[in-house]
Amino acid sequence: MSTVTSRGLADVVASPSSICYIDGEKGILAYRGYNIHDLAERSTFAETAWLLWFGQLPGAAELAELNRQFAQDAVLPEPVLNLLHSFPAQSSPMVALRTAVSALALYDADAADMSREANVRKAKRLVAQTASLVAAIDRIRKGKPTVTPDPNLSLPANFLYMLNGERPGATAERALDIALILHADHEFNASTFAARVTAATLSDIHSAVTSAIGALKGPLHGGANEAVIKLLLKIGDADPVAAVREMLANKVKVPGFGHRVYHTEDPRATHLRQMSRELCQQSGHAKLYTMSHAVEEYIKSEKGLNPNVDFYSASTYYSMGISPDLYTPIFAISRMSGWTAHVLEQYADNRLIRPRAEYIGPEVPQRYVPIDQR
Amino acid sequence: MSTVTSRGLADVVASPSSICYIDGEKGILAYRGYNIHDLAERSTFAETAWLLWFGQLPGAAELAELNRQFAQDAVLPEPVLNLLHSFPAQSSPMVALRTAVSALALYDADAADMSREANVRKAKRLVAQTASLVAAIDRIRKGKPTVTPDPNLSLPANFLYMLNGERPGATAERALDIALILHADHEFNASTFAARVTAATLSDIHSAVTSAIGALKGPLHGGANEAVIKLLLKIGDADPVAAVREMLANKVKVPGFGHRVYHTEDPRATHLRQMSRELCQQSGHAKLYTMSHAVEEYIKSEKGLNPNVDFYSASTYYSMGISPDLYTPIFAISRMSGWTAHVLEQYADNRLIRPRAEYIGPEVPQRYVPIDQR
Repeated sequence: MSTVTSRGLADVVASPSSICYIDGEKGILAYRGYNIHDLAERSTFAETAWLLWFGQLPGAAELAELNRQFAQDAVLPEPVLNLLHSFPAQSSPMVALRTAVSALALYDADAADMSREANVRKAKRLVAQTASLVAAIDRIRKGKPTVTPDPNLSLPANFLYMLNGERPGATAERALDIALILHADHEFNASTFAARVTAATLSDIHSAVTSAIGALKGPLHGGANEAVIKLLLKIGDADPVAAVREMLANKVKVPGFGHRVYHTEDPRATHLRQMSRELCQQSGHAKLYTMSHAVEEYIKSEKGLNPNVDFYSASTYYSMGISPDLYTPIFAISRMSGWTAHVLEQYADNRLIRPRAEYIGPEVPQRYVPIDQR
Repeated sequence: MSTVTSRGLADVVASPSSICYIDGEKGILAYRGYNIHDLAERSTFAETAWLLWFGQLPGAAELAELNRQFAQDAVLPEPVLNLLHSFPAQSSPMVALRTAVSALALYDADAADMSREANVRKAKRLVAQTASLVAAIDRIRKGKPTVTPDPNLSLPANFLYMLNGERPGATAERALDIALILHADHEFNASTFAARVTAATLSDIHSAVTSAIGALKGPLHGGANEAVIKLLLKIGDADPVAAVREMLANKVKVPGFGHRVYHTEDPRATHLRQMSRELCQQSGHAKLYTMSHAVEEYIKSEKGLNPNVDFYSASTYYSMGISPDLYTPIFAISRMSGWTAHVLEQYADNRLIRPRAEYIGPEVPQRYVPIDQR
C-alpha cells in the first residue's frame, strides 16, 4: 500500500498552490509573486487580501469597493453579538472566536451556497466579521459596550476603533496594517492545512475556517506570540539572557524561535523587529525591545535559531496597548484572508486529503474474550 | 526543499498509529487489533470506545464505570442548551453541532488542562455530550421539549430515548449500537486527520474535534449517508437502475460508493447491508432495501465500485425513523470516540503536521505597481 513515510509531513508536497511562495533557505516570502517586503512597505491589508483571493492587485475602484464591503460586513448579526454576551467573562478569546465564527454560518444567507461567487462573498465577510468579533469579545468581557463600526475607516483602523472606542492615530493604524499584511498567509502552515483538509471533503467555508482557528490556537502555532509576551513580562527587571539561559538548561522551549520552513531570517521578522523598536520607544516600553533583542542575539548564538513571526509581534502589539490574549485572535483576523484564499483554491480543483497511518498496534487479529471471562 | 509530491496525500504515511488497522485489498478493518466483525457481533459501542482510547478491552467494572460516566455526562450544561434554543429552527444540524461542541469548552472545567488525565475525561465527556447534543438539536428545532437522559440506559438507548422521548426496544438499541461500533474509527480519514492536524499545534481537544465535525460535514465524507437516502427517496417508485444509469451517463457521482482505501468490500458495509435488510423489512420499508441492493449490483457491474459505510447506513437509519439530516450527526457521535483516541495518541508523541505546497503561481518577484498607476 503506502510508499512514503514522513512524520508531520515534513518535506511532503500535499498539493500545488499558486498563492504563497516561500524559499526557506534564502528567506524569501511572496504572495502571488509579490515579495512580502514590497507589500509591507507599499501595500495595505485590504489590497493584500484582494491579491490573495484573486491573484492580482486590485484597481482603485475595486479596492474602494472592498473597503466599503469590509465596513459594511463589520456589523455583526445581532444573534452572534447576543451569543458573545452569553459567554463567561473569563473565556479564552480564541475559544470564543472559534465558537462565534462557527455560529456566523447560522445567520449567513450564503452559508450553504457552494458557488464560487457565494464563497468569495463569504471570504470577504469573514475577514471583516473576524475583526469585529475580536473587538467585541474584548469589549464584552471587560463589561464595556460594543462599538458600532465606522464606515469611513479602513479595516485596521476600524478594528482599533471597535477595540478601544477611539479612532486610532495614523501610526497605530499603519502599524497594525503592516502586521496584518505580514501575517496574512504562509503557504501550508498548520491552520491553513487544517482548513484545506476540512474544505477537501467539500464542507463549507465556515467549517474550514473554524478548523483553522482551532489549529491556530495551539502554542506551536499562533499561540506562540502570547507565550512570548508572557515570557518577557515574567522576566521583568531580571537579566533576560540569564533567564533564557536557564530555560535552555532546563530544556524549556523559548517561544518565538525557529520555523519548520525557514532556516535563515524570517522576512516577516525583519519588519516586525523594526516596528517593535519604533513602537516600544514611542510608547515608553523601550526596555521591552532591548530585552527582546538581547534574547534574539543569545538564542541565535546558542541555538542557531532565528526569531519567527511571533517573536517581535509580541512586543509590537504590547506597545500598542493590546491585551496579550488578543495577539492570537489578531493573527486570526489577518490569516482569515489567507485561509479563505486557500479554501477557494482547494474548491477550484479539489481532491480529498486522506493520508495513511503506519500501523504499529497489536497484531491482527486479537482474540475477542467475552467480558465475563476477562 | 521538498522531495515527495502526492495530491491529497494518497499513499503518504503521515504518522505511525496503534489505533486502526486497514487492509484495503483484503477488506480487513481492526481496532487495536480486534477485527471489526468480532466487535460488531460481540461488543458494544461503550466497550469499543474504551478499546480505542486505552488499547485493550475493559474489565466488567471498568465498563460499568464508563457507562455510568456516559449517563452522567449526557446532562448538558444549561448555557449550551440555551445556545441550542437560540439557533434558527431551520439550521443545519451539523452547523449547530459544530458550534455547540466548540461552545462546550467554555463550560468545561478541564478545557485548558492539557494533562493526559484531563484529556481522557474530556474524551469520554465529549462522546456522551455529542449524543445529547444531536438529540437536543432535533427536539428543539421540532419545538419539542428536550429529554433528560436516563442514568440506567446505555449510550445508544439513551440517545434514542432523548431523540424520541420513548425508551427504545432491544432491536433498535442493538442496531444503533452496532452502527456506532462500525463508524467509531477509520484510521486517518479526513475528519480524524483534521483533528490530528489541529491537535498537533498542541491546541486543545475541543478545537481538534470541532475541526473534525467540520470535515465530517462534507459530502465527500460523512455527508454522503444523507445524500444516499435523498437519492433513494427521490427515485421513489421509478426504476432505481435506470435512475442510476442516467446519473452515470450525466457524470453525476452516485453517493455511497467507492473508497480511497478499500478496493474490495468494505467490511462495515457487510454488516450494514444485513442490518438494512432486516430493519427495512421489519419497518415496512422492504422496498428501500431492494432498491439499495439493485443500485449496489448495478454500480458494481458498471463501475467496479463497492458500497462504502455510508450506503447501507442510509436505509438502516431511515428504517429506524431517524430524520435524514441526522445521519451525519449520528456518525459524529460514533466517530467522536475515534477522533478523541487519535488526539490522545497525537499528544502522546507530537510533531507539528505541516506539509509543503508545490508553488505554481506567478514568477517571483512581480513588480509592485502603485495603485494610481494600475
